Amino acid sequence: MVSFVQFSYELSLKHESEYFLSRPIYAHINSDAMRHNLERVRELVPGSKVWSVVKANAYGHGLASAFEGLKTTDGFALLDLAEAKLLRDMGWQGPILLLEGLFSQEDIFLVSDLHCDCVVHHIDQVDWLEALSEAKHGASSHLPKIYLKMNTGMNRLGFRPNEYKEIYHRLHASGYGISHMTHFANADYVDRSPSVDEQAEIFHQAIEGFEGDRSLANSAAVLWHHHMFFSDWVRPGIMLYGASPSGKYEDIEHAKLQAVMSLNSKIIGIQHLDAHESVGYGSRYKTDVPIRIGIVACGYADGYPRHAPDGTPVWIAGPNGLADGKVCRMAGQVSMDMITVDITDMPHVDVGTDVQLWGNFLPVDAVAQSAGTIGYELLCALAPRVPRTG
Amino acid sequence: MVSFVQFSYELSLKHESEYFLSRPIYAHINSDAMRHNLERVRELVPGSKVWSVVKANAYGHGLASAFEGLKTTDGFALLDLAEAKLLRDMGWQGPILLLEGLFSQEDIFLVSDLHCDCVVHHIDQVDWLEALSEAKHGASSHLPKIYLKMNTGMNRLGFRPNEYKEIYHRLHASGYGISHMTHFANADYVDRSPSVDEQAEIFHQAIEGFEGDRSLANSAAVLWHHHMFFSDWVRPGIMLYGASPSGKYEDIEHAKLQAVMSLNSKIIGIQHLDAHESVGYGSRYKTDVPIRIGIVACGYADGYPRHAPDGTPVWIAGPNGLADGKVCRMAGQVSMDMITVDITDMPHVDVGTDVQLWGNFLPVDAVAQSAGTIGYELLCALAPRVPRTG
Repeated sequence: MVSFVQFSYELSLKHESEYFLSRPIYAHINSDAMRHNLERVRELVPGSKVWSVVKANAYGHGLASAFEGLKTTDGFALLDLAEAKLLRDMGWQGPILLLEGLFSQEDIFLVSDLHCDCVVHHIDQVDWLEALSEAKHGASSHLPKIYLKMNTGMNRLGFRPNEYKEIYHRLHASGYGISHMTHFANADYVDRSPSVDEQAEIFHQAIEGFEGDRSLANSAAVLWHHHMFFSDWVRPGIMLYGASPSGKYEDIEHAKLQAVMSLNSKIIGIQHLDAHESVGYGSRYKTDVPIRIGIVACGYADGYPRHAPDGTPVWIAGPNGLADGKVCRMAGQVSMDMITVDITDMPHVDVGTDVQLWGNFLPVDAVAQSAGTIGYELLCALAPRVPRTG
Repeated sequence: MVSFVQFSYELSLKHESEYFLSRPIYAHINSDAMRHNLERVRELVPGSKVWSVVKANAYGHGLASAFEGLKTTDGFALLDLAEAKLLRDMGWQGPILLLEGLFSQEDIFLVSDLHCDCVVHHIDQVDWLEALSEAKHGASSHLPKIYLKMNTGMNRLGFRPNEYKEIYHRLHASGYGISHMTHFANADYVDRSPSVDEQAEIFHQAIEGFEGDRSLANSAAVLWHHHMFFSDWVRPGIMLYGASPSGKYEDIEHAKLQAVMSLNSKIIGIQHLDAHESVGYGSRYKTDVPIRIGIVACGYADGYPRHAPDGTPVWIAGPNGLADGKVCRMAGQVSMDMITVDITDMPHVDVGTDVQLWGNFLPVDAVAQSAGTIGYELLCALAPRVPRTG
């Protein structure tokens, strides 16, 4: 694992120079919308503190923008020590939670330097933390705070309830301050087992009599289950970015969230097709009547989902711009750098007309749903070659 | 469009520091395999010159690695002036082709500075180039070389055959040297119309009597149609990276291509499940009998396809490492940062065991096919948070 290639160089070149302005695609990141969405969290769970989840470069939005929009949060939660370092460099002095804790024993030094709190979800991490405590003679002021993770039915990370007590006592005996956490498998479903109620019940039974804060609620639980139990700390992620935890826009339509990322581009070509012609790779889309196709500078190498079928919504500007636009329909297979859209009903559209792939005019979840996925995936998948503007 | 956020800063921080070594996922880029794949192109079409297609950061592999592996090519083809600039900075003095040509009239200055050849696919580009020629008094030594694109049935970019002649004469009269190109819609299908033969026939008829090189063949045409027509310049992309143009690994199994990108990670957690339990979001995977689940540090925010179903292949190392490994099966919904794999038959697997998501042991196309897409998309979608090693 030597010689890390100069990928960063390439990207910084791209984003520092003016060259990237050539291709017309860009993502606008609206920090005000993030701020608004955080306020919505506070209105829904007024007694809880908020871990704003900003892992994966703030779900593709850029950590700097997220810091700008979310700096009134109580803490930031993420995975990666590089992101923790960046937050400290930007001036964040509050809590940072590492959602998967230590990946190796060596991480402990960086975690201490950066004053991060740590999730503990497997037994090796307990061994590493005991060793640290011995080295520090158990002085709790020098030890990271622990979020001990219980597996209450997600069956991904964490200790079973019957193991939890022993782990808790081991860490407690080593001088660690311990909070309790679990994660819901089905907070965005009404009919699946284990339900939020079942998981919360298991959790509360297992920690009965233990000291420490409790953290249960992700975005879905904040939106739809906040009245069922109290979470000292909630952990919203996707709702901060204005997309739906369920992947269905109609589920958040009345939650007054605002879209944070708008992915915009332009028409770069037009084709007039006769009846019985076809469009793109595999000639998937076939015409019954003459139509007009607009070619948009956005493809799967920008992060647009390749599996989006014909009919996927694309927002095309009207004669007076994007706000005056309407939904048109994809026609033909998504290419690496282009999509093709039926613009027959939009005679004003020409090379240079503005297009929105998703954002304030077209919910990312509507595009994701058409492509058989959820908004999360599209936001995270935005490619580094797409410049972000703020 | 002001204040481009400091995304590059974040990434360079990440890739320059040692922090990123914490999470165990990384992509190994094998430049020798790229070199080998380019040799395979030369063996298949010995009389043709080769535009190596390196758009989209070399299909996610990193342009620096691609330059290292492909520097014996005849030219590089790409979209983005930032990538052209990077190739020049790395010392490439040969031809560079901009596959979508100018996005705006202002691009012409950078194109001239960087000595790029330009595709011309719509009428505005012709107007811009005529204006340039007038400014330069038609001195061909100062004008970019043109690849004039004909739409022979792809119906995406380019001029119809009946328009082509007039455009050709306009550019020729302005002093431009002109090559002819088209793009196939169905070179990876045997039964779809328009076929490669039909498109090549239309193309050759329309340029009859015109001077200039011809460029027709993409990877699929190089692999499967190279005996049908001659292409002065071929334009392989995906085959240089060792994946299949059709998205089906069996189609290239005998073509002696080598995988270039290997995406590797590790097991970070283990769960023992009883019968009638479930795994992950939506509790999609349900157990009939007791099983053992390995949790791998790789999720859709790393570029792994979220729509991969239960049963998608994942390569898990054996007791003697990755080469001693075997295919296991995904069990449960892909999360943002993790996948869950059935490792019941692999008793040696523990936290820290090596895993390959795709690469030299597991074709990317096998994973893509399971997820309903093609290797191209997965390679391009590799997230910036995943470090590349070379």
